[in-house]
Amino acid sequence: MPKTIAEKILSAKAGKDVSPGEIVVVELDAVMAQDGTAPLAIKVMNEKFGGERVKDPSKVVLVIDHTAPSNNPGTSELHILMRKFARRHGCRLFDVGNGICHQLMVEYGYAYPGAVVVGADSHTVTYGALGAFSTGVGSTDAAIAMMTGKLWFKVPEALKFNLTGKFKEAVMSKDLILTIIGELGEDGATYMSAEFVGDGLKDMRIDSRLTVSNMVVEMGAKVGLMPADEEVMRFVEGRARGTPKPELTYPDKGAHYKDEFEMELEKIEPMIAKPYSPANVVAVDELEGMEIDQVFIGSCTNGRLEDLAVAAKILKGKKVADGTRCIAIAASRNVYTEALKKGYVETLTEAGCLVTFGTCGPCVGAHYGVLGPGEVALFTTNRNFRGRSGHRDSKVYLVSPATAAASAIEGKVVNPRKYLNQRIRDIEI
Amino acid sequence: MPKTIAEKILSAKAGKDVSPGEIVVVELDAVMAQDGTAPLAIKVMNEKFGGERVKDPSKVVLVIDHTAPSNNPGTSELHILMRKFARRHGCRLFDVGNGICHQLMVEYGYAYPGAVVVGADSHTVTYGALGAFSTGVGSTDAAIAMMTGKLWFKVPEALKFNLTGKFKEAVMSKDLILTIIGELGEDGATYMSAEFVGDGLKDMRIDSRLTVSNMVVEMGAKVGLMPADEEVMRFVEGRARGTPKPELTYPDKGAHYKDEFEMELEKIEPMIAKPYSPANVVAVDELEGMEIDQVFIGSCTNGRLEDLAVAAKILKGKKVADGTRCIAIAASRNVYTEALKKGYVETLTEAGCLVTFGTCGPCVGAHYGVLGPGEVALFTTNRNFRGRSGHRDSKVYLVSPATAAASAIEGKVVNPRKYLNQRIRDIEI
Repeated sequence: MPKTIAEKILSAKAGKDVSPGEIVVVELDAVMAQDGTAPLAIKVMNEKFGGERVKDPSKVVLVIDHTAPSNNPGTSELHILMRKFARRHGCRLFDVGNGICHQLMVEYGYAYPGAVVVGADSHTVTYGALGAFSTGVGSTDAAIAMMTGKLWFKVPEALKFNLTGKFKEAVMSKDLILTIIGELGEDGATYMSAEFVGDGLKDMRIDSRLTVSNMVVEMGAKVGLMPADEEVMRFVEGRARGTPKPELTYPDKGAHYKDEFEMELEKIEPMIAKPYSPANVVAVDELEGMEIDQVFIGSCTNGRLEDLAVAAKILKGKKVADGTRCIAIAASRNVYTEALKKGYVETLTEAGCLVTFGTCGPCVGAHYGVLGPGEVALFTTNRNFRGRSGHRDSKVYLVSPATAAASAIEGKVVNPRKYLNQRIRDIEI
Repeated sequence: MPKTIAEKILSAKAGKDVSPGEIVVVELDAVMAQDGTAPLAIKVMNEKFGGERVKDPSKVVLVIDHTAPSNNPGTSELHILMRKFARRHGCRLFDVGNGICHQLMVEYGYAYPGAVVVGADSHTVTYGALGAFSTGVGSTDAAIAMMTGKLWFKVPEALKFNLTGKFKEAVMSKDLILTIIGELGEDGATYMSAEFVGDGLKDMRIDSRLTVSNMVVEMGAKVGLMPADEEVMRFVEGRARGTPKPELTYPDKGAHYKDEFEMELEKIEPMIAKPYSPANVVAVDELEGMEIDQVFIGSCTNGRLEDLAVAAKILKGKKVADGTRCIAIAASRNVYTEALKKGYVETLTEAGCLVTFGTCGPCVGAHYGVLGPGEVALFTTNRNFRGRSGHRDSKVYLVSPATAAASAIEGKVVNPRKYLNQRIRDIEI
């Protein structure tokens, strides 16, 4: 039977041909939990499963990123709990100041083509861009995954997105995924594998691709998979902690997809998701001129080097508008270091941004850049649910880093093409 | 009558000869309030004084720094209140991401020789290093100061510290002021003017001097004044918002001091203030080897360019010890930008520090880098009161940036001379 990418990876892992709807138990290549979920997983082990156990510490990763550094003594206690657990069991802990979990899982080779990875965070789907079957699980499942090294999955049905052509100037992969989520809706891909194939992928760097996979969960998808082409293989070379299996990441000819979509990249326009849903998407042009209080460029969706490069290109020699705050957070220490060397941090700082790294920041609304009542913000993040990033009467609009940076200059929503006449892939980063 | 520095400034302002104990009402050159105190001052105006009034908006400065960016919707509301007030009355607001109030007051010329400045923050004493009579007031006094442009003072008695010679290698001005506070105690200078004179000042850059004045309040002093020598005059040139009067900043020969102290700088050793008082001071050597969980380099005490330069010099090519977190926060956007250009940010980041700017950070324990129960930390800040920076069973030790950086490498308290064989003034910054 010809197979989708998801079916190929799960079949290889299960050691048999699997089909949609089938339940399989497979070995995991990595399990991740962050400071919002790891303490619960540890508690579950101790209270429900008779004590802590870690099957293979080399495959367990804990990351302190959601409230990092700590915002109050209670949070600090949870961080201490994680540190002690990691030390006791010998598993990897990325402490305060290293970066956002999903970026670290990618940078440090825990995700690679053909790997199966779970994380106690819904945006674990990010690594699908590298051809890893990766998905978010609850803290209890994460605990079981850590204890046994395995987890069950229902083999998902799949949707195919055939990407062709190239993006226009100033249009980013964020605009593509916003377009798709806008069309399919919040539950348009529930428990499905969203698979992105076609020559259009070549117009996207790894950074751009990770953005697309990151957001598939906003339409309910279980995973967001892409073929591991040469660019992916170059990226994972020297990083991957297991053997990459790129051959599993190309769907078979004739594989059954529940639905197929043709996406011509040149037709994608800068898009914006209005409150309070990532699926509430319209063209940026429709909201042109709307005043904004805060801009946030960062997160596991759009805090990578390409994102900061685009923002820096737009903000170079410009200033963030009076009355508008702009926070830019590199997704990891490595991204920040690269951005330092390239001069992006300096450019952004001189433009008036507050620049840092090592936290999810405003996205999670936990401790850094929280919105007040009535405030309007443009975020490059993946969710704009009511109250998520601040007061329940604050409003978050989701956009690309290009739209965010251009709008920061004016203090109002503006089409990024006004400030950027280059295609993203053509920008040297 | 020969006069102390404080008496000279207050006499000039009052237009008559004033003596210790006398109450004078003088015109203010600037009034500052930050996000912990400005909302209270605004509330006081509205609830006790029949509405908001600002006598001279050009002299009123509001700074959002203590919890910046905001940590929760309640804080965000206070920030919004400050923004609206500043817009309504036309006074200066340094919003999220600009820096710590005291550094901004110095950088933007609100403090200068002979000026009288009050701020609703106890470390307003910092500007005494520039020869400004500056002191902290409560929110109600700040409200009255904003409304009337004036405030009353009791002319203080004074202590004289005659500084001679030069610091030894790796010893910083922080070690000097810790030594003094350790000797005099928490109330050793209550409501007095601590005046620092002598050739020893020449061994301190402006950054070093600001550290000394910043901490005089920890022994109860009302102000911490220094003569405005050529270095100060060069610093304030082009910045000062009024006419500097350096002649007011040299005490008259024969001026009466309640006590005088000879401080030979070469005798100063690296010092450390143990919990829970800045006056609980011993030599760093006494605590050598004590393990530490967190290091913080920053704050209005020690977050300036010289401080980051010293830390970078020590951490260059080294790594922060495993199990120890190191947070470095530039005191302002300008300091951060300079530190970027000089490569200090890159050095610190590569060594494993979390680097940022625009917040008081761990010092105030409000939202960023808060300590958990039992945690031990070295801070370059000015206060280590129980519970100030985290859980009430956490412990903060106050040190210089040199001691902080050297100890970060080992994860244990260490004499900075082990890693730095240069005098601070001789380091090119």
